[in-house]
Amino acid sequence: MRLIIPLLVVVFAAFAAVPDDSLIGFTPERAAAQMAMEQAFDKHVRPENLDTWMHHLTSRPQHVGSPAALENAEWTAAKFREWGYETEIVRYDVLFPTPLERHLEMVSPSRFVASLDEPVLEEDPSSAVRKDMLPPYTAYSADGDVTGELVYVNYGIPSDYEELAKRGISVEGRVVIARYGGSWRGIKPKVAAEHGAIGCILYSDPRDDGYFQGDVYPEGSFRMEHGAQRGSVADMPTYPGDPLTPFVGATPDAERLSVAEAPTIMKIPVLPISYADALPLLGAIDGPVAPAAWRGALPLTYHLGPGPARVNLRLRFSWDIVPAYNVIARMEGSELPDEWVMRGNHRDAWVFGAADPTSGHVALMEEARVIGELARAGHRPRRTVLFGSWDAEEPGLLGSTEWVEDHADELRQKLVAYINTDGSGRGFLGMGGSHALEPLINQVARSVTDPQTGVSVSDRLRARRRAGGEREADTRPDLRISPLGSGSDYTPFLQHLGIASLNLGFGGENAGGSYHSAYDSYEYYVRFGDPGFVYGATLAKVAGRVTLRLANADILPFRYTAFADNVSGYVDEVVELADARRTQAERERSLIEDGVYGLAADPTKTFVTPPAPDAVPHLNFAPLLNARESLVAAASELQKALEGAAASEGLNAALFQAERVMTRDDGLPKRPWFRHQIYAPGYYTGYGVKTLPGVREAIEEDDWDLVDEQIRRVSGTLEAVAAHLRGAAAIASHP
Amino acid sequence: MRLIIPLLVVVFAAFAAVPDDSLIGFTPERAAAQMAMEQAFDKHVRPENLDTWMHHLTSRPQHVGSPAALENAEWTAAKFREWGYETEIVRYDVLFPTPLERHLEMVSPSRFVASLDEPVLEEDPSSAVRKDMLPPYTAYSADGDVTGELVYVNYGIPSDYEELAKRGISVEGRVVIARYGGSWRGIKPKVAAEHGAIGCILYSDPRDDGYFQGDVYPEGSFRMEHGAQRGSVADMPTYPGDPLTPFVGATPDAERLSVAEAPTIMKIPVLPISYADALPLLGAIDGPVAPAAWRGALPLTYHLGPGPARVNLRLRFSWDIVPAYNVIARMEGSELPDEWVMRGNHRDAWVFGAADPTSGHVALMEEARVIGELARAGHRPRRTVLFGSWDAEEPGLLGSTEWVEDHADELRQKLVAYINTDGSGRGFLGMGGSHALEPLINQVARSVTDPQTGVSVSDRLRARRRAGGEREADTRPDLRISPLGSGSDYTPFLQHLGIASLNLGFGGENAGGSYHSAYDSYEYYVRFGDPGFVYGATLAKVAGRVTLRLANADILPFRYTAFADNVSGYVDEVVELADARRTQAERERSLIEDGVYGLAADPTKTFVTPPAPDAVPHLNFAPLLNARESLVAAASELQKALEGAAASEGLNAALFQAERVMTRDDGLPKRPWFRHQIYAPGYYTGYGVKTLPGVREAIEEDDWDLVDEQIRRVSGTLEAVAAHLRGAAAIASHP
Repeated sequence: MRLIIPLLVVVFAAFAAVPDDSLIGFTPERAAAQMAMEQAFDKHVRPENLDTWMHHLTSRPQHVGSPAALENAEWTAAKFREWGYETEIVRYDVLFPTPLERHLEMVSPSRFVASLDEPVLEEDPSSAVRKDMLPPYTAYSADGDVTGELVYVNYGIPSDYEELAKRGISVEGRVVIARYGGSWRGIKPKVAAEHGAIGCILYSDPRDDGYFQGDVYPEGSFRMEHGAQRGSVADMPTYPGDPLTPFVGATPDAERLSVAEAPTIMKIPVLPISYADALPLLGAIDGPVAPAAWRGALPLTYHLGPGPARVNLRLRFSWDIVPAYNVIARMEGSELPDEWVMRGNHRDAWVFGAADPTSGHVALMEEARVIGELARAGHRPRRTVLFGSWDAEEPGLLGSTEWVEDHADELRQKLVAYINTDGSGRGFLGMGGSHALEPLINQVARSVTDPQTGVSVSDRLRARRRAGGEREADTRPDLRISPLGSGSDYTPFLQHLGIASLNLGFGGENAGGSYHSAYDSYEYYVRFGDPGFVYGATLAKVAGRVTLRLANADILPFRYTAFADNVSGYVDEVVELADARRTQAERERSLIEDGVYGLAADPTKTFVTPPAPDAVPHLNFAPLLNARESLVAAASELQKALEGAAASEGLNAALFQAERVMTRDDGLPKRPWFRHQIYAPGYYTGYGVKTLPGVREAIEEDDWDLVDEQIRRVSGTLEAVAAHLRGAAAIASHP
Repeated sequence: MRLIIPLLVVVFAAFAAVPDDSLIGFTPERAAAQMAMEQAFDKHVRPENLDTWMHHLTSRPQHVGSPAALENAEWTAAKFREWGYETEIVRYDVLFPTPLERHLEMVSPSRFVASLDEPVLEEDPSSAVRKDMLPPYTAYSADGDVTGELVYVNYGIPSDYEELAKRGISVEGRVVIARYGGSWRGIKPKVAAEHGAIGCILYSDPRDDGYFQGDVYPEGSFRMEHGAQRGSVADMPTYPGDPLTPFVGATPDAERLSVAEAPTIMKIPVLPISYADALPLLGAIDGPVAPAAWRGALPLTYHLGPGPARVNLRLRFSWDIVPAYNVIARMEGSELPDEWVMRGNHRDAWVFGAADPTSGHVALMEEARVIGELARAGHRPRRTVLFGSWDAEEPGLLGSTEWVEDHADELRQKLVAYINTDGSGRGFLGMGGSHALEPLINQVARSVTDPQTGVSVSDRLRARRRAGGEREADTRPDLRISPLGSGSDYTPFLQHLGIASLNLGFGGENAGGSYHSAYDSYEYYVRFGDPGFVYGATLAKVAGRVTLRLANADILPFRYTAFADNVSGYVDEVVELADARRTQAERERSLIEDGVYGLAADPTKTFVTPPAPDAVPHLNFAPLLNARESLVAAASELQKALEGAAASEGLNAALFQAERVMTRDDGLPKRPWFRHQIYAPGYYTGYGVKTLPGVREAIEEDDWDLVDEQIRRVSGTLEAVAAHLRGAAAIASHP
């Protein structure tokens, strides 16, 4: 039942950029048919399917290479075939190390051997399924047997090492212990190794991920004391996918690097542990008390070390090549078979993976089923629709990356957009992606009803943003979508090939701590994730609409005015960032020259004044500002031309190919695989996005020559996009 | 030895408002003599005296009414007499309840009886001295025997109850448990009672005051699990001093209120407990999870309740009238005996009180001893110097308040300034007080050497402020001093009588958790407070200089340009505060009207939308802005007139009487005892200062009619101060 709250309708109607009775990219008559079909789509969606399928898929551990991985691939493929899709299982052979030995022992001042085990919980029968279960570990950790003093490094990000240096503490030749949070996991050992550490222990502090946040499992949803977070520590910001086959699909005959050569494999041993295992280790560290912001919620005083706690960390892995099975389902378009729209979600998990990834995977399946049903009833999509059920996402986006690398040329040519989901829960729509798709996803979000409140999922999200203090959400017609960093399978599509992408999911009301643990189970999910699968069904409606509108639109629903608006903001940000760093460096230099830090420090404690930063030069942002002007003007010109334009393959190609123009073949500094010049995961954040990454990261790293070069490159890219948009406008005006 | 760091001298010399070879208020020849005497003063100061005296004074519990209280008064008086002072012990008879019964028991869902005990520590022999020791309790709690469900109320300040209301939680008929912090302790039960609570438990959370901050006693300096914070819960923001004798000294024949009539006695029972005792109570509270900012560092999930934990709190007190013994020592001025300068520090403690108050008290004693020695050598102060060693400060500034009320007329007429200290430690000079004394204390701080770094205590403090991000400290010649709220014995002088006051002490490097516990011992203090008493000696040099410069200056060193400068800032603040509240109320109303909070809330949890705030009217700040102009002009006129003026009793009287003009006989709204119109403790902060309190608190309480009235009153006060300053300028120009 849809509840209408009249006041809200009135208030928010004023915000709609495009009237919601005219669908972006559709002629009026086709819009009516599309909306009727979407109503039919909604009626077909059955939450109980999601429940049944999740129960089936998560009954056994389903990591890449596991027995269940192949069986679930075959089961999924059978479903797609049943629903009318041409379906194939596409296999790649990828490096996937699993642990042969895991040992962590404190050898002094007292002896303690970490349990490294997630116990069986009576309340969660899944947790008793031990066959094929991978224990807590991090994939692509180095083998090693190291012994050293412990140093607590907080989140283990670069700024944390600056704080340690001020206190005269080095990690050279020592083992660091870092809490999860503050960056993607793989950054922590990478930065530790850069500073000379010989080993890295990761743990989930109860402040960030445990009892501080709420009641723990199985009483509540948060991480219990023995829960640990598995994950990948490959250097994904350099390139994701199989570490042995960068740039090419991991086919049987692909040329492979050796493990020793692979640059993304971690150089030191890394192990994730629970807070029960971390407690004795942290309690045995002495030395300076950690800065206030570094302290977690364990009942102890957090010290930095080094030592006296010394630990032995011993890790050995299989280094096996295992098969990864992507399921690729295809429904050929009735009118434009060579324009493709792809929808994807990974299928592999660290253990059972009810939330991550199955909650999104079963929504995708339900979309496929319903689209199949609609097709049989005569509503076959005009463009070709692909569904990807990816394997091996967890170790580093391997399934999707290898497939994308393997099919790069065809995808570049034909793929209009890629729509990703991953783990999803209850609450508010999360929308990230290419900004040219911002108006489309906003229009879709206004047309789908939130199952708890009866308003649209857009209205609910807007309420959350307004309540959270986002002033822009009081008045801006469309809600902004987030730029994409990394962390799921859109990365190879968007950042390697320049294919416009969206990443969608629900969350915010399913907070908990099952992530990458043995407790991410069906039993957990139906209590704390999305009881009744009502948001899973809603996700199917949102992602299904996006897929179908892209598949059926007359003129593809890209809006580069939204892209230009967001990029304008990013340009302002990098200019302000440089100015802020200049001001900050100036003051910092004067404080250091005046000896202020030394005088302010407690003389009874070690304090090392940091080196004075170099002065920040004034930078020539003119090319970037000029490129922005071009971009804004061209986007506006295109938008005007689109009003009343007739659809054509040339126009549509120009519209979806514009994202390709945002890439450069030589990619970003230090990481040529990442070609997109607008969006990238941060080199030192891992998942967290950096927009205009070439310029932004060069500023953050104080590399001023590089900034100049990158300003020129990014400006060139934006000018090229502008030229491309003017070309599209010309096609629209004179078809 | 004084280290000179040439760079710093050059850098900071540029900041000096008044050249430091010309002392403010002194003729050049008298300045030279004064500086020579101050050199002699420094040479006489002996840290070992502070050590010896602290050891003596803190060997037994020394709360008001204890056997040691009288003995320590007599011992102190004997010292002053030995040093050449006319000394008397001035007794007042004051209400001081001590516990006859303390019982806190959880009666369901499980039984737990709180220990309410601070155990003896082998490492701290003082803690074994049990005779006369007051156990943890709060003075002026109500008697009571109440049983009710527990509600966790965070710090228990008004905004916390707004959060509870949003979650549908009332404390009516229940017992609240509040952590220390966020306000002065007495605010917590006051606000709880206003909301209908029947009892109030206070506890020290290890996040604010325990292992989260650092290693706990006796290993480190922070509060150990059984440490509890005693204190007063009288409603001091209404009036301090003996609850039974507001406005008059508690002399034998004073008219007294009955205990039942006394408005400042708490209306509900209140008990402070340790975190060891709080742990089972908090662990048994269920209901919604507390907001993130409310969560402490105990290893549990903080819930709000109500219940299911139910507690019985049973408290009974003696309600005795006990003698309070102030020691008043006097050295008559050699030239101006009717102009007085007073230096004070309390002597009573909750238990041994090594830090609080003895660390400051022994510095005061050393100042008195050295001044006595200098007087014998021919350098008797020109003005009369008084020393006050106050009793009964801990229960609510009783000793000082009763003495000030008892001698109000003479003090108003003769007392030039009051210089307070209290507990002091290691690190940085803390300076608070009347802003007309800001240039004086800055000049003094530039002339005293920091014992750890060899730069002046001013340079060290400036370094701390600059390192902490205070931009103004990069360039402003004088460091700002803090306006005074309450919390020590300056309150009756400054806020009841309008006597210019300073409050001084060192701290910032002696962080710990001995406050108001049995572990505030000599053993603790010499390890963690001020090892070697080098900062105690430095405090004696700072406070001694201030006292002697006030006592010997030709023209009293008040600078009303500094007062006008600071008040100007306060005027800006209240105008901005009203504007900010208007903007905030407007947005809040629109969010509530749009139903935003309801939509943003998780429907599975209770959420009550708060009532929409009233619109904030535009206010007529013109009188205040005009008064500010007058004040700034008059202060500038006086400053010009003082350049080259000749000293006279009339001019000096005009200078020190200006602070009296900042008071009004009818005081502040709801609390006539507080007469100062510029500085007051906050009605809902307790110790924390509110400047321009009449206006500021009326804005904070959304009482717009009262704001108008208070703007007019405060403007009248500022105009009166301006007129007084013009009068002083006239005297200075035409003596």
